[in-house]
Amino acid sequence: MYPSPIQSLITLLTRLPGVGPKTAERYAFFLLRQPQENVVQLADALRDLHTRTQRCRICLQYNDAEVCAICKNPQRDPKQICVVAESQDVEIMESAHEFHGRYHVLGGTLSPTEGITPEQLSLAALKKRVADDKVTELIIATNPTVEGEATALYIKNIFAGQPVALTRIARGLPMGADIEFADPATLANALQGRREF
Amino acid sequence: MYPSPIQSLITLLTRLPGVGPKTAERYAFFLLRQPQENVVQLADALRDLHTRTQRCRICLQYNDAEVCAICKNPQRDPKQICVVAESQDVEIMESAHEFHGRYHVLGGTLSPTEGITPEQLSLAALKKRVADDKVTELIIATNPTVEGEATALYIKNIFAGQPVALTRIARGLPMGADIEFADPATLANALQGRREF
Repeated sequence: MYPSPIQSLITLLTRLPGVGPKTAERYAFFLLRQPQENVVQLADALRDLHTRTQRCRICLQYNDAEVCAICKNPQRDPKQICVVAESQDVEIMESAHEFHGRYHVLGGTLSPTEGITPEQLSLAALKKRVADDKVTELIIATNPTVEGEATALYIKNIFAGQPVALTRIARGLPMGADIEFADPATLANALQGRREF
Repeated sequence: MYPSPIQSLITLLTRLPGVGPKTAERYAFFLLRQPQENVVQLADALRDLHTRTQRCRICLQYNDAEVCAICKNPQRDPKQICVVAESQDVEIMESAHEFHGRYHVLGGTLSPTEGITPEQLSLAALKKRVADDKVTELIIATNPTVEGEATALYIKNIFAGQPVALTRIARGLPMGADIEFADPATLANALQGRREF
């Protein structure tokens, strides 16, 4: 056991995802060797994180205002909603500069093993938005994994028979990939999703 | 770019060793999903780190008192000093329950590439301790790496001709190792360091 101020920091750092005792030790002793003001800066950023951050009232992404910049932007089409699992997925989708609608953050994906049920996702809010804004297209951008697919299917069933188009982002070979090393499922998806050239 | 409270935390987290932007993002969004009190607890631990921690006046290890528990302990032989590179090495050496002397933390190892010169290590303090306490043995426990060996050799030269025995922790096969996968340098060390059985 290290002296208590070091040991308690190590214990708290091991709560971070993927951080074991050795990594936490490395972080703690690295921080000890840094100038005090740098560490206090990090402490301040952590202290302010929750107080200065809130979820956008409309799309539920983490944000520093009541309504996020995307939902506030009149150029962004409110009738087209891209549904993502997590708040950080919004940033990643935006990096493609391809989508000009708005987002909806589910807050996770359905996972019986992790105990995440439909009630824990923001599906009621999504239903309300689709009805209120007369949304014409829902682009489901959950991961192409078991959980992501299950979530996509669940959302599809919710809106079955309603006047909203449901689309799913394409699966196929990523840019720069080598067919030689592609897995059968990805190749099958790439074939099924082929487009005129 | 994320909203500023999130982005500034991400930027500060990327300063941690081995943490890139993706890992920092993962930490930040994980922390956002945690209860606020957990994050504030971490912030407090960071804020207190420097104010509640100091180097032991004698052995220079990080500690919460002026003199650490080992240097304070009259059972620990002040005439036998184990010289380690970093503060956290003390804890690791202690886990072997084999050494009953005291420690001396160098604060690094000689490294021309990283610009670490003898002046930056606590060698003057070590010389003073050896003289003041009439130290009989210095056990050099730096890593068996180029930097660690260079540092050990440098310390050996400092005390050449003085009435203090210099020893180096043994190199050889680690417990549970497989000779089949041992490297030639380790095997050579294991042979040179062989002991009667």
